[in-house]
Amino acid sequence: MPNVTAHNPDYVAAVHAAFERQPFMGFLGAQVAIVEPGFVELRLAYRDEIGQNHGYFHGGVLGAIADTAGGFAGFSLMPAGSSVLTAEYKINIIAPGKGSELIGRGRVLSAGRTLIFTEARLFVRNGERESLCAVALQTLRGKSGGPGVAF
Amino acid sequence: MPNVTAHNPDYVAAVHAAFERQPFMGFLGAQVAIVEPGFVELRLAYRDEIGQNHGYFHGGVLGAIADTAGGFAGFSLMPAGSSVLTAEYKINIIAPGKGSELIGRGRVLSAGRTLIFTEARLFVRNGERESLCAVALQTLRGKSGGPGVAF
Amino acid sequence: MPNVTAHNPDYVAAVHAAFERQPFMGFLGAQVAIVEPGFVELRLAYRDEIGQNHGYFHGGVLGAIADTAGGFAGFSLMPAGSSVLTAEYKINIIAPGKGSELIGRGRVLSAGRTLIFTEARLFVRNGERESLCAVALQTLRGKSGGPGVAF
Amino acid sequence: MPNVTAHNPDYVAAVHAAFERQPFMGFLGAQVAIVEPGFVELRLAYRDEIGQNHGYFHGGVLGAIADTAGGFAGFSLMPAGSSVLTAEYKINIIAPGKGSELIGRGRVLSAGRTLIFTEARLFVRNGERESLCAVALQTLRGKSGGPGVAF
Repeated sequence: MPNVTAHNPDYVAAVHAAFERQPFMGFLGAQVAIVEPGFVELRLAYRDEIGQNHGYFHGGVLGAIADTAGGFAGFSLMPAGSSVLTAEYKINIIAPGKGSELIGRGRVLSAGRTLIFTEARLFVRNGERESLCAVALQTLRGKSGGPGVAF
Repeated sequence: MPNVTAHNPDYVAAVHAAFERQPFMGFLGAQVAIVEPGFVELRLAYRDEIGQNHGYFHGGVLGAIADTAGGFAGFSLMPAGSSVLTAEYKINIIAPGKGSELIGRGRVLSAGRTLIFTEARLFVRNGERESLCAVALQTLRGKSGGPGVAF
Repeated sequence: MPNVTAHNPDYVAAVHAAFERQPFMGFLGAQVAIVEPGFVELRLAYRDEIGQNHGYFHGGVLGAIADTAGGFAGFSLMPAGSSVLTAEYKINIIAPGKGSELIGRGRVLSAGRTLIFTEARLFVRNGERESLCAVALQTLRGKSGGPGVAF
Repeated sequence: MPNVTAHNPDYVAAVHAAFERQPFMGFLGAQVAIVEPGFVELRLAYRDEIGQNHGYFHGGVLGAIADTAGGFAGFSLMPAGSSVLTAEYKINIIAPGKGSELIGRGRVLSAGRTLIFTEARLFVRNGERESLCAVALQTLRGKSGGPGVAF
């Protein structure tokens, strides 16, 4: 198991506060559903503005949710006053993003002093049924100090 | 040089029409600036809704523009009535996306019968100066028929 | 759960036979340890020829094992007489590849008509202890007919 | 243009010396052909041991050469006594690796204090003709001190 100790006792509040400071997540309509040490779940209801021409979640939205879910999973482990930046991410879209809700689950694989590796799984929900639509890997850089999150 | 023959004589109009059918691109505010066979340039002015907490373009916006610039570069080569889907993309954010405009340049590296490989370079513009902020690789699947684009 | 039906009743023998036809795997010294529908485990004992300058498995060896474990996981689902090719793979090296044995576990995430998506996890073994050293994502192209595997 | 100042006046010798200390590169038969600040070209003659079942360069060999060309491109910029490690790489195989020689050209895109981003292009040579067979992106971590290279 990876090292998933949260170094900030107020990590849940810190994730919510940093999420609120990201205008783009509010613009998309995403919400933080679950925060655990090294794990964050985001949820985003479908609406046409975030779709492509078939009425599915746009691939760029999938990437944004994967990047953000992984990024906050990493941020949840950081000491108070630290920040994380995305160095890179990669997403495989294994099925069309067709559903009423997109669920992004980011999880830390390894948290070192300067680099944090995460993975994300994205699901689309249709009624009670969730199906995997994308998987992602991400590399984050952690910094002491700095302005919070920067992905 | 890659095989960059446009099989649709109306490829420029086809790219613009397909772009207009993607609500998410309009929602972000992106525009198609240049279309050539196997090459597309997108432009997106900064505003706070598409930023993260530092006032830079959000990493998810960078990914969306890379995905879309590469996707339409591939689509520009497809016969009329065909479609392309994103199988995967990967983006390295090499510098903060800080600027008044984001420029995404997607280019086809190889166009086979079923798979199209592209790369994208993203630049932020500050006044007259453009600086590279991200690079991306992408794999597209091309299909005869189908609904246009689906990335 | 992904669609992991093996369409070739002799899929175990087919994987072993195709593996034997890859000179590079024998050159490295890798062996097929487990074959299940949509899952393959490879094992490779450490020796200096496949190391880098610290005495760890070389990053290129990690990539080769990830590519091959994922590739054969996909191949295990293919009808007799089919082939798969690697379109792309991506590997995050989350810890140094330091151990007496490298274990690569490839698993199919989704198997469509033309594209197969896999993931791989690489572990280094030291005595009884296995620790995760790398994770990978891969896109394969499946073809009816063709010469077996081509990754 | 990226910051490609070599901080070690003996960077050419340093690259060659570090390359010699990597047993795996010698095992494959690869050689350093060109070293410039932020750029390295590797060459590898085809032989069956490094092929797959079609007689092409194995995908794992392509990844190893991409990783190593990018890694030494980054290393060429580091101060004497520093080291670089691969955090991740991603390779798109756009055409079969069929040729008498594989040429890997790694280039630094951005060199920061802790992270170095590179890209690599791989070509297969047949007679006088070189053709692009793969493209890669890579993230390296640079460290003051340390044992040289670790990719």
